[in-house]
Amino acid sequence: MRQILRLNLTTGTVRREPLAREMALLGGRGLLDAILTAEVDPAGHPLGPGNKLILAPGLFAGTSLPTSSRLSVGGKSPLTGGIKEANVGGNAGQVLARMGLAALVAEGQAGEGTCRVLFVGPQGTELEDRPELKMKGNYETAAALRQRYGEEAVVVSIGPCGEMGMAAASVAVTDLEGRPCRHAGRGGLGAVMGSRGLKAVVLDPAGLKMIKGERPEEFARAAKAYSQQVAQGARNPFWRDYGTPGIIDAASGRGSLPTRYFREGSYDKRAGINGQRFKELIDERGGQTGQPCMSGCLVRCSNVFNDAEGEYLTSGLEYETICLLGSNLDIDDLDTVARLDFLCDDYGLDTIETGAALGALSQTELFSLGDGPGAIELVHQIGRGTVLGRVLGQGAAVVGRVFGLTRVAAVKGQSIPAHAPRALKGLGVTYATSPQGADHTAGFVIEEPLSNQGQSERSRKAQLNSILADTLGICQFAEVDRTDLDLFAGLMGPLLGLEVTPEEVKVLAREALLRERDFNLAAGLGPAFDRLPEFMAVEPLPPHEEVFDVSREDLARVFGELDRPEWGR
Amino acid sequence: MRQILRLNLTTGTVRREPLAREMALLGGRGLLDAILTAEVDPAGHPLGPGNKLILAPGLFAGTSLPTSSRLSVGGKSPLTGGIKEANVGGNAGQVLARMGLAALVAEGQAGEGTCRVLFVGPQGTELEDRPELKMKGNYETAAALRQRYGEEAVVVSIGPCGEMGMAAASVAVTDLEGRPCRHAGRGGLGAVMGSRGLKAVVLDPAGLKMIKGERPEEFARAAKAYSQQVAQGARNPFWRDYGTPGIIDAASGRGSLPTRYFREGSYDKRAGINGQRFKELIDERGGQTGQPCMSGCLVRCSNVFNDAEGEYLTSGLEYETICLLGSNLDIDDLDTVARLDFLCDDYGLDTIETGAALGALSQTELFSLGDGPGAIELVHQIGRGTVLGRVLGQGAAVVGRVFGLTRVAAVKGQSIPAHAPRALKGLGVTYATSPQGADHTAGFVIEEPLSNQGQSERSRKAQLNSILADTLGICQFAEVDRTDLDLFAGLMGPLLGLEVTPEEVKVLAREALLRERDFNLAAGLGPAFDRLPEFMAVEPLPPHEEVFDVSREDLARVFGELDRPEWGR
Repeated sequence: MRQILRLNLTTGTVRREPLAREMALLGGRGLLDAILTAEVDPAGHPLGPGNKLILAPGLFAGTSLPTSSRLSVGGKSPLTGGIKEANVGGNAGQVLARMGLAALVAEGQAGEGTCRVLFVGPQGTELEDRPELKMKGNYETAAALRQRYGEEAVVVSIGPCGEMGMAAASVAVTDLEGRPCRHAGRGGLGAVMGSRGLKAVVLDPAGLKMIKGERPEEFARAAKAYSQQVAQGARNPFWRDYGTPGIIDAASGRGSLPTRYFREGSYDKRAGINGQRFKELIDERGGQTGQPCMSGCLVRCSNVFNDAEGEYLTSGLEYETICLLGSNLDIDDLDTVARLDFLCDDYGLDTIETGAALGALSQTELFSLGDGPGAIELVHQIGRGTVLGRVLGQGAAVVGRVFGLTRVAAVKGQSIPAHAPRALKGLGVTYATSPQGADHTAGFVIEEPLSNQGQSERSRKAQLNSILADTLGICQFAEVDRTDLDLFAGLMGPLLGLEVTPEEVKVLAREALLRERDFNLAAGLGPAFDRLPEFMAVEPLPPHEEVFDVSREDLARVFGELDRPEWGR
Repeated sequence: MRQILRLNLTTGTVRREPLAREMALLGGRGLLDAILTAEVDPAGHPLGPGNKLILAPGLFAGTSLPTSSRLSVGGKSPLTGGIKEANVGGNAGQVLARMGLAALVAEGQAGEGTCRVLFVGPQGTELEDRPELKMKGNYETAAALRQRYGEEAVVVSIGPCGEMGMAAASVAVTDLEGRPCRHAGRGGLGAVMGSRGLKAVVLDPAGLKMIKGERPEEFARAAKAYSQQVAQGARNPFWRDYGTPGIIDAASGRGSLPTRYFREGSYDKRAGINGQRFKELIDERGGQTGQPCMSGCLVRCSNVFNDAEGEYLTSGLEYETICLLGSNLDIDDLDTVARLDFLCDDYGLDTIETGAALGALSQTELFSLGDGPGAIELVHQIGRGTVLGRVLGQGAAVVGRVFGLTRVAAVKGQSIPAHAPRALKGLGVTYATSPQGADHTAGFVIEEPLSNQGQSERSRKAQLNSILADTLGICQFAEVDRTDLDLFAGLMGPLLGLEVTPEEVKVLAREALLRERDFNLAAGLGPAFDRLPEFMAVEPLPPHEEVFDVSREDLARVFGELDRPEWGR
């Protein structure tokens, strides 16, 4: 029976408790949602005493299933004011799952200025005050904790931005080399962690074993088909060679690459930041592509990016980061982008929200597009918490509010990521309607990208498929057929020692999505918030010169008709 | 037939059009609501092209009815995101009404950086570019425009804060001496005006005559009873001698005077700022109490406050200002408060929101309670638009957001004014539920102040009474029985040349309130926003040591049962 590890920061107590029976089929995002909606008042302040930070490994985490051990991180978002789940790679998901933990719930608040570290190891747990780590970056924090607890320790931590309560603050997870470069970036969950007084969670994997399931042989048989699908999908070397930066040219060609703060959909200077350039520089400088972020990953899309002297600059440099901190800011220099990525990782910032905040600021006199050194200086200001840094650290919507800007690319306070919705209208429907705010991972739609018809149905299906994948812990690059409910039911049953039908799998996804929706409604994020920014309805985006013109009625149908259509088969 | 003067800033056109028949009974807030809800998309950005600034004199404005010519100013609020009406004294209401105008609607947007002035005189209207007034204070603006258009001209203007799009920006109206010291302060309407590119409206009263109504003799008879009520109420010299600062001691005694950013309800150092001290300094220094803000006012609660050298410091120094910029900031020096009041008037800032923003900031290292010179410097920063000034100029809720504060005294983004709701729970219900956000003028309740029972009913009645008074243009200090619907119907009929029943008066108030509510729902401000800040439910307020404990169910009953109860008789 899986357990919940409950850490109360107010009292300093840690206890294990059994997972409630009604949550038995859940993991990851779905479980996190269930706990959050049961335990957190939607009306409460995200940084107040009632919010909780929840870490929940996907249901498949820790098993032999490859590329399927994502960790969901969640709470009530200081960025959107609604429910939030951000998921992340690295080995934290696997380790937590192998510890028998369905979730770690951090609740209460240590006194202001407290800096605590929770260690979870084979002998039990320890909660320590570590004042010397206060306002330290993630790199220094992870290094210090691995020195203390061993090189194999997995570290989940926040940088100074989380400690300062910034809504762009991320939660970092170490990669296989111990670098804190995997981030649960979106929604300000770092600030939820920081406002508990929790600086880091350290997980010692010593002695842990792979999860074989309650009916091991049956599980192993089912796992084989699944693993073959993932292996088949991973035969294409594209992700290993280029990683996600490889898609920059395609996005630009499709007209959906946010450029110059969402004024263009193609980037004329993309040769400075595209996949080819990325790979050239990595190869020249002794960096690496083809890195796995979690043990046993077959996709291996991660990377190490060195500077011109061959010195480490950053890891896990992703497409989203290169867009939001590159084309979005008209910075066509990968070294600058890589430096910004490192600083965001170290200070503990979502690169998407940070790039968007700088983009919004470029509409004032305080920052100009194309100014790489200026961007670096501003990210330092965020990390140091200057007044301007505080504004930027709260994300683009707050930048817009502070400077009286009407043109801000955000939904429910969360910045639109690196796929322009005027050129990908189905994804635009997801941005508008997802309980997560604008989030490309909440339901990616690429079909008939310029049509305003039929997108609500596509988005609904994609959102259901995504919440299921996030519940199971499946990486978005694991090429598993997300509509194959028989496959999933056939794995879940023997894994959990239960009988699970495909219909139950379908229902759990829909119920999880509705749970998120209901939480948001109670928090005040009603249907009026299900829309893209006003300017996108009137300002055509080159090169297609399209506006976002999916009707409000269609947007309302995503949730309005959630019960009706078949999906997933 | 009354008309609407419609100014389109995009095209530069001005035209008069008849008031729609269904709006015939409306003036002031009720009319403004009707126009706004009919013409403005609730989903639009408050500073975007679709918002409108509306000036609407109360229905009684310009008649012989004393102390009843308030001007309603409104639009979609950049502070709350909902509907907004703020009303103001001065002679603008009378003059607009006597011009035959039920409302002035400023719509569209002049190009960015444009600074336009609309002149309305006996010969017609002129719209001029006045770039030399750009970023000028209200005092310089009003003086320049009165020099240009004559000493009798009434000026409605914004300072630099309105031009910078700040959500704490006010709309100033000149008093009888031509000083821009009467402000439609709340909700950031100055930014709505500024975002149109409209710096000022100048009204030339030359040749205008008092409104005698469509059935003059009948109106005069009805007016007599009304005027006698007002005159009777004004026999007590309290408002003339002390003005609103006279109530500081009473509020402190009642435990409802916000002190040290809502940490206390009584101010130990009130002797430095109370009514007695206020009157002493005015008398010593050759200032004035007993000033009328509009022609024919019998209450005369306004004042002129001089400095120690007998030089003009400010006018219209009010209780709310002295609380929010005084006791709230632990500044017990009236000269400092008066200076802050002048700066707010000149830069074009709501003194309530500004004081609250400084109060919120006192929870950071950037400002300390009791620091008068620091407060003055910060208000200058707002007026100059430094980064910190921009944050403060967006109001206390944005200060809280930027600095990650959980303790912010605001509802729907608008700061709680100078009556502490934990010690005045009925007013707290109004703060929580009014479509206007936290606003003491939206429905003042003082009965059984510490009881959490029956307050929804009291608040509902008070909100209906207030919206009626704001629709008719009645000053809150005109002691007219607001529940005497026969009196109001008996005035409205002959004034408008219609038959008006008391029932119709009752219905128009209720419908106006529901219209505001519906606009807010469509704008996203649903019932989840009808609550006081979380901290007020858990942090007891000295001296009564009370929390705000009216239940959510009771709060929901304010609007939930709006149709049911009798009110007003």
